[in-house]
Amino acid sequence: MATIQEVAKKAGVSVATVSRVLNDHTTVAEKTKIKVEQAIKELNYEPSVLGRNLRTSESKLLLVLIPSISNPFYSEIINGIEETALTKGYNILLCETDSNPARETIYFNLVRSKLADGIISMDPTINKVKLNELAANYPIIQCSEYDQDGAIAYVAINNELAAYHAVKHLIKLGHKKIALVNSDERFLYARERRQGYEKALKEFNIPVQKQFIYNTKDVGFEDGQQAMKKLLDQDNRPTAVFAVSDILAIGVMKQIHTSGLQVPNDIALIGFDKISFSNMTHPTLTTISQPMFKMGAMAATMMIDKLQGKSIESVVLEHELIIREST
Amino acid sequence: MATIQEVAKKAGVSVATVSRVLNDHTTVAEKTKIKVEQAIKELNYEPSVLGRNLRTSESKLLLVLIPSISNPFYSEIINGIEETALTKGYNILLCETDSNPARETIYFNLVRSKLADGIISMDPTINKVKLNELAANYPIIQCSEYDQDGAIAYVAINNELAAYHAVKHLIKLGHKKIALVNSDERFLYARERRQGYEKALKEFNIPVQKQFIYNTKDVGFEDGQQAMKKLLDQDNRPTAVFAVSDILAIGVMKQIHTSGLQVPNDIALIGFDKISFSNMTHPTLTTISQPMFKMGAMAATMMIDKLQGKSIESVVLEHELIIREST
Repeated sequence: MATIQEVAKKAGVSVATVSRVLNDHTTVAEKTKIKVEQAIKELNYEPSVLGRNLRTSESKLLLVLIPSISNPFYSEIINGIEETALTKGYNILLCETDSNPARETIYFNLVRSKLADGIISMDPTINKVKLNELAANYPIIQCSEYDQDGAIAYVAINNELAAYHAVKHLIKLGHKKIALVNSDERFLYARERRQGYEKALKEFNIPVQKQFIYNTKDVGFEDGQQAMKKLLDQDNRPTAVFAVSDILAIGVMKQIHTSGLQVPNDIALIGFDKISFSNMTHPTLTTISQPMFKMGAMAATMMIDKLQGKSIESVVLEHELIIREST
Repeated sequence: MATIQEVAKKAGVSVATVSRVLNDHTTVAEKTKIKVEQAIKELNYEPSVLGRNLRTSESKLLLVLIPSISNPFYSEIINGIEETALTKGYNILLCETDSNPARETIYFNLVRSKLADGIISMDPTINKVKLNELAANYPIIQCSEYDQDGAIAYVAINNELAAYHAVKHLIKLGHKKIALVNSDERFLYARERRQGYEKALKEFNIPVQKQFIYNTKDVGFEDGQQAMKKLLDQDNRPTAVFAVSDILAIGVMKQIHTSGLQVPNDIALIGFDKISFSNMTHPTLTTISQPMFKMGAMAATMMIDKLQGKSIESVVLEHELIIREST
């Protein structure tokens, strides 16, 4: 393959001039430009990816930031992002931030260096200040979790309403002692889901009891198990549990079984997300379905619209209550 | 921040000369080099990531190729890769190939363009010919699945021996009608695990029966369910099942429960991988533990050794039989 040096030699100009032509600089004389383009054509020169970045200012790569790939909730969203992005000629790179600021910086710099065109962030732990700084100059879309104070467009569901529907379902089944297994309330979604939980209880004149609310540190199975262990250890046991993710709910279910109790006869259980595993448990898990694939597809569409200079607006998608065996 | 143009102006040289200095070209006169370095220092110029790539030929980015992020088997390996890579100053980008050759090409080109330093491939569906071509010039490590005919170093377990141990465990429990729920045998691991299954049966004079062997198209929960449905539909039912992944085994377990049968009383079940889900099922799943974290850490170590010019060799890690409630 021909090099940029060979192109410069053939056109009788410097490498910097070839680079300027590739960059569409206006400072290159039309005559020179034609000479360089002729040389490029004759030598069948193909700019490397680096060259392409410089020339078109587009890498056709989108970064997708996730806190952890271990959480299957993100897989389905990513499938939606990918399908849309690929159809429109974009590829994605997955960046696991693991809540590590140093890694955030590296991924942000990939966009600053034009090695990637933009970022779709699904990371609730991301530094909001830095994200908003970056968004002032580069395309960013927030997906699922978002910063409500900033100006960055997002696609999400109405978490408060979804949680309200989940808890109302338990209340309608006759439950009054309903526990909330929530994640860390420094995350917006966790605060909103708690609001929905409290709203439903208040609407039916059921007191909000602190002893029925448990906040986990992380969002793994074990966190769900630990939460349920605490809730079962107290004298006043709940008869139903709303866990804010299916992974937490599956840990809760495991602990109920381990304690010799049955779902839903002894304790009813509802999760959140509708990950594929939620249908594989025994009994199957009642849950709030998030339109994960659609959410990802929408985020990708918004990103590409933004890259094409179109104006975009935040989108709130519909959730759905999926009643199965655990309630 | 200063630009390369400003550096060139200050040093009284062309941009191409500055670039040559950054690239450590030998064609730059020592006097010119000193002038440029002085200008870089005075202007506090920091080359962009692009500049750094050109200068050091190292991006400090490793690509990790996975077939699908929906499979939790890969998460734990990736954690191992990341921990080692980060410790040694490398970052990783996850590339989901989704068995799509066009995407493989894009990721391969990132390495050819020096935007990434090397590839750790975990993708069994990858084009082996193209991977070997790339490996002739760029650092590649295979992890878990590998091409046994090529010259690319790998880290894996002994799949045949591991499957042999799984099936022998079922035989020792008195089972003679042991089904194999295997994935597509175009993958090396699937062929090896079948060999291990047959070896164990033959050692105990149990005939290998075609009707007890089921090959799935994909490796999702639903594939396990379908496989078990077929196996239960026949008159001669197995009393035990060896599924070559935990995800398949969890689908198998679901189908057994759906059919009104019990694990392990009616049908014993053993999986493979020891993903975290495997301990959340009811009953918990007996499985073959793959040292996933260690496998990832080893792959990253091999990659970085290779990048540093050290010679590396393929590694086979130990597996372990984890006996839990399903057998």
